[in-house]
Amino acid sequence: MSNTWGKNIEVTIFGESHGVAVGVIVRGMPAGMLVDMQEVQRELNRRAPGNSEFGTKRSETDIPVILSGMRGQEACGTPICAIFENSNAHSGDYKPMIRPGHADFTAIMKYGEAADLRGGGHFSGRLTAGLVFAGAFAKQVLVQQGVSIGAQILSVGGVEGLRFHPLKVQADKLLRLTYDSFPTLDEEKLPLMQQAIRTAREEGDSVGGTIEVAAVGMPAGVGEPFFSSVESKLAHLLFSIPAVKGVDFGLGFELCETRGSFANDEMIIKDEQPSFLSNHMGGILGGITSGAPIIARVGIKPTPSIARAQQSIDPVSGTDVMLSVTGRHDPCILPRALPVVEAALALTLLDLYLEV
Amino acid sequence: MSNTWGKNIEVTIFGESHGVAVGVIVRGMPAGMLVDMQEVQRELNRRAPGNSEFGTKRSETDIPVILSGMRGQEACGTPICAIFENSNAHSGDYKPMIRPGHADFTAIMKYGEAADLRGGGHFSGRLTAGLVFAGAFAKQVLVQQGVSIGAQILSVGGVEGLRFHPLKVQADKLLRLTYDSFPTLDEEKLPLMQQAIRTAREEGDSVGGTIEVAAVGMPAGVGEPFFSSVESKLAHLLFSIPAVKGVDFGLGFELCETRGSFANDEMIIKDEQPSFLSNHMGGILGGITSGAPIIARVGIKPTPSIARAQQSIDPVSGTDVMLSVTGRHDPCILPRALPVVEAALALTLLDLYLEV
Amino acid sequence: MSNTWGKNIEVTIFGESHGVAVGVIVRGMPAGMLVDMQEVQRELNRRAPGNSEFGTKRSETDIPVILSGMRGQEACGTPICAIFENSNAHSGDYKPMIRPGHADFTAIMKYGEAADLRGGGHFSGRLTAGLVFAGAFAKQVLVQQGVSIGAQILSVGGVEGLRFHPLKVQADKLLRLTYDSFPTLDEEKLPLMQQAIRTAREEGDSVGGTIEVAAVGMPAGVGEPFFSSVESKLAHLLFSIPAVKGVDFGLGFELCETRGSFANDEMIIKDEQPSFLSNHMGGILGGITSGAPIIARVGIKPTPSIARAQQSIDPVSGTDVMLSVTGRHDPCILPRALPVVEAALALTLLDLYLEV
Amino acid sequence: MSNTWGKNIEVTIFGESHGVAVGVIVRGMPAGMLVDMQEVQRELNRRAPGNSEFGTKRSETDIPVILSGMRGQEACGTPICAIFENSNAHSGDYKPMIRPGHADFTAIMKYGEAADLRGGGHFSGRLTAGLVFAGAFAKQVLVQQGVSIGAQILSVGGVEGLRFHPLKVQADKLLRLTYDSFPTLDEEKLPLMQQAIRTAREEGDSVGGTIEVAAVGMPAGVGEPFFSSVESKLAHLLFSIPAVKGVDFGLGFELCETRGSFANDEMIIKDEQPSFLSNHMGGILGGITSGAPIIARVGIKPTPSIARAQQSIDPVSGTDVMLSVTGRHDPCILPRALPVVEAALALTLLDLYLEV
Repeated sequence: MSNTWGKNIEVTIFGESHGVAVGVIVRGMPAGMLVDMQEVQRELNRRAPGNSEFGTKRSETDIPVILSGMRGQEACGTPICAIFENSNAHSGDYKPMIRPGHADFTAIMKYGEAADLRGGGHFSGRLTAGLVFAGAFAKQVLVQQGVSIGAQILSVGGVEGLRFHPLKVQADKLLRLTYDSFPTLDEEKLPLMQQAIRTAREEGDSVGGTIEVAAVGMPAGVGEPFFSSVESKLAHLLFSIPAVKGVDFGLGFELCETRGSFANDEMIIKDEQPSFLSNHMGGILGGITSGAPIIARVGIKPTPSIARAQQSIDPVSGTDVMLSVTGRHDPCILPRALPVVEAALALTLLDLYLEV
Repeated sequence: MSNTWGKNIEVTIFGESHGVAVGVIVRGMPAGMLVDMQEVQRELNRRAPGNSEFGTKRSETDIPVILSGMRGQEACGTPICAIFENSNAHSGDYKPMIRPGHADFTAIMKYGEAADLRGGGHFSGRLTAGLVFAGAFAKQVLVQQGVSIGAQILSVGGVEGLRFHPLKVQADKLLRLTYDSFPTLDEEKLPLMQQAIRTAREEGDSVGGTIEVAAVGMPAGVGEPFFSSVESKLAHLLFSIPAVKGVDFGLGFELCETRGSFANDEMIIKDEQPSFLSNHMGGILGGITSGAPIIARVGIKPTPSIARAQQSIDPVSGTDVMLSVTGRHDPCILPRALPVVEAALALTLLDLYLEV
Repeated sequence: MSNTWGKNIEVTIFGESHGVAVGVIVRGMPAGMLVDMQEVQRELNRRAPGNSEFGTKRSETDIPVILSGMRGQEACGTPICAIFENSNAHSGDYKPMIRPGHADFTAIMKYGEAADLRGGGHFSGRLTAGLVFAGAFAKQVLVQQGVSIGAQILSVGGVEGLRFHPLKVQADKLLRLTYDSFPTLDEEKLPLMQQAIRTAREEGDSVGGTIEVAAVGMPAGVGEPFFSSVESKLAHLLFSIPAVKGVDFGLGFELCETRGSFANDEMIIKDEQPSFLSNHMGGILGGITSGAPIIARVGIKPTPSIARAQQSIDPVSGTDVMLSVTGRHDPCILPRALPVVEAALALTLLDLYLEV
Repeated sequence: MSNTWGKNIEVTIFGESHGVAVGVIVRGMPAGMLVDMQEVQRELNRRAPGNSEFGTKRSETDIPVILSGMRGQEACGTPICAIFENSNAHSGDYKPMIRPGHADFTAIMKYGEAADLRGGGHFSGRLTAGLVFAGAFAKQVLVQQGVSIGAQILSVGGVEGLRFHPLKVQADKLLRLTYDSFPTLDEEKLPLMQQAIRTAREEGDSVGGTIEVAAVGMPAGVGEPFFSSVESKLAHLLFSIPAVKGVDFGLGFELCETRGSFANDEMIIKDEQPSFLSNHMGGILGGITSGAPIIARVGIKPTPSIARAQQSIDPVSGTDVMLSVTGRHDPCILPRALPVVEAALALTLLDLYLEV
């Protein structure tokens, strides 16, 4: 399945950036679930453009129109369809072009002239509004089970902050981070990160970075060998998010350079319960949750749309061109990517949690 | 699906390390395909234990018994089942225990007392023999289409070598690497990497590292938005391989700390063809192949089985124990992991290539 | 997957009868395909209520609003979302009740009080508008490949007409049937069938019957053993259509009472081509197309909504009630079911045809 | 997926009739389940050839060799692989030929010369041994939940017996039928059915018929709209069984010729519980179980292998031939098909039952 994801939760995505609407269908939310729609909107607002100094200035409002599966605030058990109308599309800002770092070239190679490239078309980050919508539902189900999710900006443009404490990260801390427009644990590095963005913007450039996402409260024993390990399912969904170029778990790539005697998380009995002395593995062993916090790191590439002139080719004439992407663009996408990454984690954990 | 993977190629995995056999079923290989079974065996030998100074000394031979789907060297078009008998299991080497870094604890949390933990059971690296078998078939189909795959050891225990040239990596070089028992581009770092393994072994410890895998010859336009991006499908399969804790594409996490003006791969017309001036993206844009070499990096954690004493808990009595994993174990799994990682790339690319 | 169907063609369904809209997402239509939208509308009109003496008098118009995946008449290659607004819902006609023969009782058993039962909710025949939309696209792709699909009313209320000639049924005949509001090969039986409907209606009752559907032009060799036989995939989709209670292929159940010497379709060489002397098997052998016309029979139960009083139970009080379903209902659903059945055949054949 | 079926239960099938072995992998059986392997063997024996006057005289014994997923009688929770060695293959009985009514022609059209046609290859009824194995496990899980399954021969060669009482069919009766080598409710028709088979055999011919299968004890509310209705999933699996040409539910095709006032199953409150006055719908409404017995009818075509000469074509020379299928063949496959049909019902109901 390429536009549907999931087993116990099914998420179907559709839409183009400058078409009539983008949307999502979510199936598997429990019948009778009372949904806090204000909370859903809060999550959508976190992703929406125009909400931060560091994002784009477009004023789209991502207000979902729910077509099915809900009666008021209550989920009926049937597929929930939500659409986001593309009211603020400025197709005039775009002409047929191949923007370096974007999917324009590959879309043409795949779909030929039929490709709808306006605003990135189906490859636009706007498609992730649906993921955030679905993820907001998943979060509300999970929280009832004692599972909380949150994320922080770990690094921006080479400025790296502090990581979550792999064992002591707390639910309320994770929740609080979701209210912060630029959440990072490292108060010292925060201004440096923001400065990196400002400088890039001033220079007509952009920066990327990494997001660290965590879930606490997941019971041990969730995940399915061989092909539905927590890592497999989560990485699958994370890499569907435009701009994600790397995913690792626990100490991840860093862990891989250590020795077994360090990497292995030792266990003891504490308060009559099995307990880990460390959590280098990110709460996952053999693809299955260990009961320790789930921690993953997600690499987000620099926003490809930049004002600086770049070499490219003209898709019509097939000649070299210099191209400067005008219009309103995010110099750094990380603040808006946070709820998307959290949504991916929420959907994955809920899907596996519901596994028989 | 948790023990079946793929859409156009279906791979089903089964078995426990110390059961009767492990095996694989592969569906989707073209009817009439003439399979070079010696080449398949060569790939299996690369993964098999006992073939290198740096691996375990167990002498299992991974010789597939083909139960269906082949008539001699010819694929019939129907599901191909191959099993690998577990002739050399030493269950006496194992008693019920929770080895730090292994799936023992999570398997018990998932399956309770029914869990077959002998030798890691279903979570054993031995399960990957089936992946290598399937991957060897996929490679042979791909090579007919001009697609070649190979991998190198990029780092071991903190010693990092040179990366593939992202644009100039060649098919014959990739092929030659598969004949090398410790392939790494960096001749200077090679002895340091090997020394890191030897030292770890002498100290009753183990090391991990990273593998860099590449494919050349993939046409542009392969991959499916939104949820079947090349990155999604490949990461999904890679993270099913035991010990993989990180995956990134192109410059990956490093790329994420750069600026858009660097990260974006610029294009020109060269010899009347669209051509990239760089390949920081690992040959994938918007989840779709760009025509440039596909490059991914895979982080392999240190082998969890080590002779050093570690704190753990006894699964029966529920008390603290000190545990030293005896028996024959790899101080570094990377040489044997190479063909598994290549298989994952081959299966993913073939599956997407066959997409209508 | 429960609200998504298909492999090479993915169809996702959503909506409730009296919600905001019902809809469909179709993925897999070829990029650049020029769609005859008038023809799509014609198919939708065949299913729409109010178009025939024998159907309901509701005047809903099933005009699709396309939200994504199309640019004018051209398919972009990305998921096509079409919605059908529920402009004409008369929820006042319904109160919480369990209508015999409907899904009301089972929906409550499944979803509890959260179930949206208005107009049948998610179980309404209205959901099939999306199938017809998707099927209309599939038909247009198939016809380019020389595959034509059509259906007739084979029996109504016990009045049985003539079957398609299993070898000689023609594409143009099938096409012509789709223009007929009450297509049946048997001109003698036609008035008797219609009279059966009229009588039932006058008596506050309803009738069912059977539809025979055929496809000509399918090449031999399409279909996948073991679990994706043509029969398996088609029956799966047909039984998703509300009211379908039986499916058989070729002579079907009748065939099962014959002997092998009759049932087996003998072959000869004719005009240097393999040729069947009969087609009792409905063009399918071993689950794979034989090149002969594909023929299936679909049993449609009598419309459950009838004016006659029936015993039922009150879902709120849990007491016995007599229930007479008022409002506008079809005394016979078969004429409107024809395009739905054809759509199921078109989607199944296209999905299998696109299989590598 | 074409050789894997199921969502919560995954069944993967492989093998050719005259290859090394046929087999099955079953995933989803609960960890710790104690399996009555004698009962599994009893089910396999029911399907095995040579056990009845009316079947073939081949003496294959279908004894499963379990390769994984079990430790003694206990399921480990991981994929269970069982193989059935093809010890008794007489490939000499077969030469390349196109047997009318078999998949030989379509297999060649699909796979070309690579097709393994010996004994029907992958299309052989022998593949269903794996289904019976998996179904025997599913039955044992279901029976713990109070769900019992059984089947009878409803008609043979045009001789039709009595149907199950749609409301009063009992678990113990269903169980007893599984011990009967020629189970049919209609004692008067029994000798006529058997005579029909004997006569056909004497005349070098074969007969088909219908099987009626039932499940009692299923709770109401199981099944998933839109595309995973009980009917859709069950028909899908039933039509994967070679020789099945028709499936209907409840009164099925007969029901479709009645009126709504008859067809609708009325309800009353009885003993303070909702209760049906009839069960024409076969225990399924809107694709969801109603709590009434699940009843389906399955049409089995006459065995295609007959001694009588038939017209066919030679696949090598492409010329007309007269063909008489020698060797040992069943004049009527129904007695052996019973456990296969029951297995399909058991697997389907368990898969849906396990749905969240």
